[in-house]
Amino acid sequence: MIRIGIDMMGGDFAPLEAVKGAAEFLNSNAQTSHVVMIGDEVAIANHLKAFTLSPDTYTIVHTSQVIEMHEHPTKALKEKQDSSIAIGFQLLATGKIDAFISAGNTGAMMVGALFTIKAIEGVIRPTIGAYIPREDGSLGLLADVGLNADCKPENLNQFAILGSLFAEHILGINNPKVGLVNLGEEEGKGNILAQATYPLLKENNQLNFIGNIEGRDILMNKADVMICDGFTGNVALKLAESIYDIVKRRNIKDEHFERFNFEAYGGVPVLGVNKPVIIGHGISQSKAFHNMINIACKMIDTNLTEKIKASFNTTSA
Amino acid sequence: MIRIGIDMMGGDFAPLEAVKGAAEFLNSNAQTSHVVMIGDEVAIANHLKAFTLSPDTYTIVHTSQVIEMHEHPTKALKEKQDSSIAIGFQLLATGKIDAFISAGNTGAMMVGALFTIKAIEGVIRPTIGAYIPREDGSLGLLADVGLNADCKPENLNQFAILGSLFAEHILGINNPKVGLVNLGEEEGKGNILAQATYPLLKENNQLNFIGNIEGRDILMNKADVMICDGFTGNVALKLAESIYDIVKRRNIKDEHFERFNFEAYGGVPVLGVNKPVIIGHGISQSKAFHNMINIACKMIDTNLTEKIKASFNTTSA
Repeated sequence: MIRIGIDMMGGDFAPLEAVKGAAEFLNSNAQTSHVVMIGDEVAIANHLKAFTLSPDTYTIVHTSQVIEMHEHPTKALKEKQDSSIAIGFQLLATGKIDAFISAGNTGAMMVGALFTIKAIEGVIRPTIGAYIPREDGSLGLLADVGLNADCKPENLNQFAILGSLFAEHILGINNPKVGLVNLGEEEGKGNILAQATYPLLKENNQLNFIGNIEGRDILMNKADVMICDGFTGNVALKLAESIYDIVKRRNIKDEHFERFNFEAYGGVPVLGVNKPVIIGHGISQSKAFHNMINIACKMIDTNLTEKIKASFNTTSA
Repeated sequence: MIRIGIDMMGGDFAPLEAVKGAAEFLNSNAQTSHVVMIGDEVAIANHLKAFTLSPDTYTIVHTSQVIEMHEHPTKALKEKQDSSIAIGFQLLATGKIDAFISAGNTGAMMVGALFTIKAIEGVIRPTIGAYIPREDGSLGLLADVGLNADCKPENLNQFAILGSLFAEHILGINNPKVGLVNLGEEEGKGNILAQATYPLLKENNQLNFIGNIEGRDILMNKADVMICDGFTGNVALKLAESIYDIVKRRNIKDEHFERFNFEAYGGVPVLGVNKPVIIGHGISQSKAFHNMINIACKMIDTNLTEKIKASFNTTSA
């Protein structure tokens, strides 16, 4: 039985949308999964009344504090030890849950992941990626998208390994193509970081490296895993996200641009930490929570974390 | 009389589209402007037959060589001294033309500009910006978009001054708002470069600095002049350009997204060199050439280069 822990207090619509997402998930997965709802038990129980869930499919772990969206991560985690995020990581670290999901304070989730679950041995810096919708209906992965604003070539090389394993096992892409986001296609192009990263990716036999990709290729199907520093990736991702707003405002109906609603994807996993941790958009609604739980299950089912560990042990050997 | 020099051999549709663009321009501007067409005189004269231009409105300067799109800039300029780009810069340097426009080899144009016309005293690195269409019909400016892949804070500070003067005098924006492209809005956010640039922009009294802007703000009306390193700017610009291709492919008809056809804007000026130099898209057609000539005229009419010089003298004083 997989035990998924959810921070019910995280996000703009907490705990209602988290409850709805968990209930939708349990409707079809109660045979194999158990949901641990972490947060204010009265509020959660109230919302649960609307659903006919068997009481043995979930557990409520009461917490009395909430880390708000704009609190300082380290300070908040230290001061609010009975917050849903602090308790969630405690449950994860002690093996009471197998994965932890939150749409709350991203910084606190990151700090919690790095300090309690810690980076996998050999991983210099974990990364966060984002799904990129492609016209054929598939998803690509862009990483890093903001966790690591300044990167070294070795960081990008590791993001490529982490992203490839995620794309293969979670997105189901066989032998995923890895592209280095750059300002030109030819080898030798780029800023100092990209120029120094290229040979690392090229020589990395764990990767199916296809070379440089440009900004125009990010929304296309050229590479499945697109690697860049978190500054560039963040700017590119938010630019892409803004297209959805423009399309909506202009009343354009288009199936493909509907998929630019990045909130629908739920959250992205922190890649490179020792247990599955998924961080969602603050404005996550039930569908996003449902998706996040699905991704967490898939990470557990496919043993992604163990595969990453094995990969980094191989690398350092 | 303004004398505009055009490299007739540059771009994928040379010299036909350059001839058409020049002819369209001269149809309404022959009273004040003279066009110097630089390139193969037989080919140019052949195309000119289709237009009824008075022979005193233009001059053909024959050149026997062409720098192709993928030639090495420095090598090509050295070896092809009778190329349209080499001759164009010679005419510009010696005052025979007041501005030089080309849709040819961008690298050769940059090298030519830096070595013959040179950077304005006090400008560490010139920059190239790109127009960004906004929903209200206006244009913003994003700089740098690829000329300077690695930047120092002082470079970005200078791009902000150059971009502001361009936005004010050429785009006609009064007191243009300057935004620093960053991964978060709050002061203190960013990679090392953005963090170090913020205080320079904030303290620069030549600028109307509004703070950080995010990727989601680039296509919006938040800042008129958006400053970043050339790596980030190039990725963001090409991502934005690719939206037009997606929209076309999906057969979406929308007035605003029509303006994402970046080729229509013609070229962008190299900001920070001693004379007006405009570099166009390789696929420029007549409308793009026409627009580039208009921008060159506006740069001359408004004395932009002198204003930039004055601004940098003030800065260093």
